[in-house]
Amino acid sequence: MLHPQYYVEKAKQDKLLARKNEKADFYNGVFTRYKNPVVTRDMIPLDWRYDLNPETNPYFIERLGVNATLNSGAIMLNGKYYLVVRIEGNDRKSFFGVAESDNGIDGFHFWDYPIQLDDTCPDETNVYDMRLTQHEDGWIYGVFCSESKDKTNPDLSAATAAAGIVRTKDLVTWERLPNLVTKHSPQQRNVVLHPEFVDGKYAFYTRPMDSFIDTGSGGGIGFGLADDITHAVIDEEKILSRRKYHQITEAKNGECTVPIKTDRGWLHIAHGVRNTAAGLRYVLYMYATSLEDPSVVIAEPSGLLMGPRGWERVGDVSNVLFANGAVVKDDGTVLLYYAGSDTRMYVAESTIDRLKDYVFNTPSDPGRSVLCVRQRCDLIRKNKEFMKNEK
Amino acid sequence: MLHPQYYVEKAKQDKLLARKNEKADFYNGVFTRYKNPVVTRDMIPLDWRYDLNPETNPYFIERLGVNATLNSGAIMLNGKYYLVVRIEGNDRKSFFGVAESDNGIDGFHFWDYPIQLDDTCPDETNVYDMRLTQHEDGWIYGVFCSESKDKTNPDLSAATAAAGIVRTKDLVTWERLPNLVTKHSPQQRNVVLHPEFVDGKYAFYTRPMDSFIDTGSGGGIGFGLADDITHAVIDEEKILSRRKYHQITEAKNGECTVPIKTDRGWLHIAHGVRNTAAGLRYVLYMYATSLEDPSVVIAEPSGLLMGPRGWERVGDVSNVLFANGAVVKDDGTVLLYYAGSDTRMYVAESTIDRLKDYVFNTPSDPGRSVLCVRQRCDLIRKNKEFMKNEK
Repeated sequence: MLHPQYYVEKAKQDKLLARKNEKADFYNGVFTRYKNPVVTRDMIPLDWRYDLNPETNPYFIERLGVNATLNSGAIMLNGKYYLVVRIEGNDRKSFFGVAESDNGIDGFHFWDYPIQLDDTCPDETNVYDMRLTQHEDGWIYGVFCSESKDKTNPDLSAATAAAGIVRTKDLVTWERLPNLVTKHSPQQRNVVLHPEFVDGKYAFYTRPMDSFIDTGSGGGIGFGLADDITHAVIDEEKILSRRKYHQITEAKNGECTVPIKTDRGWLHIAHGVRNTAAGLRYVLYMYATSLEDPSVVIAEPSGLLMGPRGWERVGDVSNVLFANGAVVKDDGTVLLYYAGSDTRMYVAESTIDRLKDYVFNTPSDPGRSVLCVRQRCDLIRKNKEFMKNEK
Repeated sequence: MLHPQYYVEKAKQDKLLARKNEKADFYNGVFTRYKNPVVTRDMIPLDWRYDLNPETNPYFIERLGVNATLNSGAIMLNGKYYLVVRIEGNDRKSFFGVAESDNGIDGFHFWDYPIQLDDTCPDETNVYDMRLTQHEDGWIYGVFCSESKDKTNPDLSAATAAAGIVRTKDLVTWERLPNLVTKHSPQQRNVVLHPEFVDGKYAFYTRPMDSFIDTGSGGGIGFGLADDITHAVIDEEKILSRRKYHQITEAKNGECTVPIKTDRGWLHIAHGVRNTAAGLRYVLYMYATSLEDPSVVIAEPSGLLMGPRGWERVGDVSNVLFANGAVVKDDGTVLLYYAGSDTRMYVAESTIDRLKDYVFNTPSDPGRSVLCVRQRCDLIRKNKEFMKNEK
């Protein structure tokens, strides 16, 4: 005999899980937004939160609440869509859970249990933001942030971050490998594994010198090679996408999703951060690298690809739009999974062709207001001439 | 003859004051939220803000606007519910006003005048966040934050904070006592007076060493005794609820409401603060102390009790859920008054029995993600076994 409230909450959740998604009004030609979040805390199974036994939980109280579902890795396997969701408990610790959907835009539901990682790092307090790479070596790798208390700093909030690495074939059984070592960077966040070998090595997107965010040294997204994934060590990190004054990367930037291979180059989705009077603001941007040499940038379209809009702006960490997972369908459709304000997951849809057009035909940032106005007036002038001839 | 706009504004306010509250959809078994705020700036009497004389105010302009109604002390007297509301004028100075309701969930209306405290501290620039303690000595005490410019610091924002103390029998006449002196803590905020004598003394919840938030010394909610409430001096402060790395208290914590006495111990509602890219985030949590010795913690349920949700997240200081007042009804109902983002007051409802169940049966925080997942998987496993047997 279950508590009567169980049936009430179960019915509410079933309705939420069955809700169909639909395209939102938003238009910019690059991507379509969907109206409803694809994963929220309310979709976490009831048996992950409540003790269902009325004898031990007579008031049907949430025993282990969930605060947020956010930054999710994404992958398609055997025709199904999987998110490895960052789930944050009411206790502030994050962990990972697999949510599955038939179409990638609604119907996401969690598997029976969250992922239980091997306890290989005794100091590790928190894990989050897993990127899933289907590597040509046959494994699916998960690269995530592994965070520990910085014992050298008396500040209770001081943490050190490293890139944790796991691998799997089925998202069920996970093998934990040693954390990535970057010889010249004491910390790493936002590390992504490239899906192909480069010069026969494992290639990583990194963020060099994470603990010294200053302009001169190592400011941007890095690229480095490791011989052995089971003891991944990177010596040199080369900067790909630099942080720049008064551009969208000014305060910080980092790789987001696994780069997407196209006939014209690798398409990268990254995040840029600026500072504001109300804290940091996170947006997405794109760049492209060469097929021949993925460490060479070949296109840098100007400005943001996506910024938080409407209710996406509201959440635990306001004004953050962040992504670490995307899926490319056989027909060229791209589903980008993004979190609104570190609180809930959304999906945006585009195509390889649209993204290529965006990346290679968007002018690059001229860097100064007066030049940006000139760039825009050129566009307007051309448009007016075109419209005159059209009439 | 009044300005025609007066009648328009009066009718709007009368409608707002007469609005019935109702329970929101939110469910977690611990507390129920009510949909509408219980006190907002729009409920401040018109004659506190407008000059009603059309000769001196021909445009019916707001002469002394009110910016926010927030962190309110709460008490029940003679069957009525009273909030001592922190009212912030457009001039940024806060003061206190009494709002009264018959049922505690709607119909709150302000008395004719705000509270006028004795001007005993010439440097005191601001007062806020009064906790109301019905003490067994027969007085109702109000303990609040008394803030002055820190004259030793050239930074114009630097303030020093102390705990101000007033007492009353009827919320009408208030006697101001000297500020609390804590010998080893230069500053105090979030001080709460315990409702009973402890070893024949007045017991306070404090926040030791407020100006040095560091790990080693004084990081958490303190407990101290004073012989004489009319010249309250605390020597030793013992830490009750500690701040901890990557828990909800990491950046700061503090006592919220007056502890609630139950047959199993004192139930405490406190606040925990973490840092985010968008500023500090305030949530509530609970702990319990012993009836025999209120300075001994006997239960520390994991994680947050309440975090800001929906529109509560939006206001002058976003993502802050804060409370400094609760009322316990004779039937065991607990009404917790909380502010959303330092802007407006809400009410949540629970019962002593539910809060006891929450505090004593919620597991404590194991401190690391991998252990938190193990804790959750144990819950899931038990639930799956229970459900199997149910079928």
